[in-house]
Amino acid sequence: MTESQSITAFAPATIGNIGCGFDILGMAVEQPGDVVTVGQKAKPGVTISKITGDQGKLPKQANQNTAGVAALEFVERFDLDCGIEIELEKKMPMGSGLGSSAASAAAALKALNTLFDNPATRRDLLQIGLKAEKAACGSAHADNIAPSLFGGIILVRNNKGSDIISINVPEKLHCVLVYPHIEIRTEEARKILPKQIDLSLAVQQWGNVAGLVSGFYQEDYALIGRSMQDLVIEPVRSKLIPGFARVKQAAVANGALGCSLSGSGPTVFALSESAEKAKQTGAAMQAAFKKENLSSNIWISAVNKEGAKIIKEE
Amino acid sequence: MTESQSITAFAPATIGNIGCGFDILGMAVEQPGDVVTVGQKAKPGVTISKITGDQGKLPKQANQNTAGVAALEFVERFDLDCGIEIELEKKMPMGSGLGSSAASAAAALKALNTLFDNPATRRDLLQIGLKAEKAACGSAHADNIAPSLFGGIILVRNNKGSDIISINVPEKLHCVLVYPHIEIRTEEARKILPKQIDLSLAVQQWGNVAGLVSGFYQEDYALIGRSMQDLVIEPVRSKLIPGFARVKQAAVANGALGCSLSGSGPTVFALSESAEKAKQTGAAMQAAFKKENLSSNIWISAVNKEGAKIIKEE
Repeated sequence: MTESQSITAFAPATIGNIGCGFDILGMAVEQPGDVVTVGQKAKPGVTISKITGDQGKLPKQANQNTAGVAALEFVERFDLDCGIEIELEKKMPMGSGLGSSAASAAAALKALNTLFDNPATRRDLLQIGLKAEKAACGSAHADNIAPSLFGGIILVRNNKGSDIISINVPEKLHCVLVYPHIEIRTEEARKILPKQIDLSLAVQQWGNVAGLVSGFYQEDYALIGRSMQDLVIEPVRSKLIPGFARVKQAAVANGALGCSLSGSGPTVFALSESAEKAKQTGAAMQAAFKKENLSSNIWISAVNKEGAKIIKEE
Repeated sequence: MTESQSITAFAPATIGNIGCGFDILGMAVEQPGDVVTVGQKAKPGVTISKITGDQGKLPKQANQNTAGVAALEFVERFDLDCGIEIELEKKMPMGSGLGSSAASAAAALKALNTLFDNPATRRDLLQIGLKAEKAACGSAHADNIAPSLFGGIILVRNNKGSDIISINVPEKLHCVLVYPHIEIRTEEARKILPKQIDLSLAVQQWGNVAGLVSGFYQEDYALIGRSMQDLVIEPVRSKLIPGFARVKQAAVANGALGCSLSGSGPTVFALSESAEKAKQTGAAMQAAFKKENLSSNIWISAVNKEGAKIIKEE
């Protein structure tokens, strides 16, 4: 790293959609997540000096890397005349439906904002983060970047990402993430979605969305469970995941409130009412994937209420 | 009325949909509403002895009248061996989008349940009420009958009406109802709805639904206002109401949080943050209808948290 001060931040993975809330709901978890260290350098420009944990897959050019794009936007918005050096530690799988690109951008932004004495408001961070997401994914959806930055359960009311609402986080809520070792590209997962849906199905879906949001506010775990069901997207996307139906069945039979795809998958998540139930659920889900000859990673945590955070200042 | 005890109940009008929540949200108001008096008689059977305020439009045959159907179902479910006599005072317009048939059924059920020492649970009342609604409207939607029975803001999560959630009522919330003197038949208003909608539009709508529900829980009036917008149904149905766009504009320009159709219309409702703003809003809405040469009725109230209630026992 550079000779000057350096700041290291962690930003969490996120569960996009949370079942029925396609493109509008997201939730931050405690693990996994990405770690980004930033420092100032005299020469203008953004340099990514090191990337670890990406198996050589991520570009080091700043304008092609989500942390780099976030830094470039940050420099431009606050008219900085110095340069920035970035180290990125990928500590979560890419293309897994866990908001990997958002986590890198969120960690970079949290670190940069601290390094430069917090010039960016919450709104600034979100807008810059959205630009980074757009560069990485081709479209600017806030359902990963917003919870990764701010933590908790986030409603992205409109698709411009300009109306972000923090929803109450039920005290006992736990998340299980099981990432089976197959690859799904977000773009592909978007292509197979229907362009139109039956009005009657849409009504059922927004009934579920309203029920899920009510469940979060009322801390009514049974209501959360019966409302999280996604009738529109999951039936289409889950076909890309071998054994999904069995994994879901195993989750629900082993204490999960409900189970669905995280974002566009292949990670499958479940919600539970306690850490203990989450462990039981997760073991059953991993076993079900195993029967499909799929190995998997698993993470269990409470909802992350804090979002991106500083973990080292030197 | 009969020689025995008689019980009189009032049940309120209701705002179906509350903007974006087509077929899933409903809200009870304090006025208008219907009044039903019931008494026991020796001879089995349900008799409607008197109807006032209906301009001779409602059938007196019990099985063709929503209060009568409710009574018939009540008698059957609780295996009563006596007869029932009903007097119905219509105190609200019919075919107005205010849940008139539901209010009659709710008032009858509240009165009957009290007369027979409360044999019916909340769930029983709802199920019987849904049957009455089905007899009156041809389909069983709970978004009027549930709030008329129980008061408050109600989420009907599924269309079977078996999952009814009471949502927090913001303390300062007020409703304006303006009923222009034209007729729209619910059946007609349903026929013109699209069978399918764009997924992108559905996503915006469920983003609004989630925002509206959040706004109610957080008592965030600005969020309620920007979320209640209905992008799917209102654009189609509002064409049946002369001057709707101007009425809505007048409401919003005069302090309303938002404005839309109540149920299938023609009543237009607005939500406001205070009684004072509601009055101002209502006057502007009535004036806008006047410019279309439409006279109207107006009611202003807080949200009715109580629902159907006993007003006389003799």
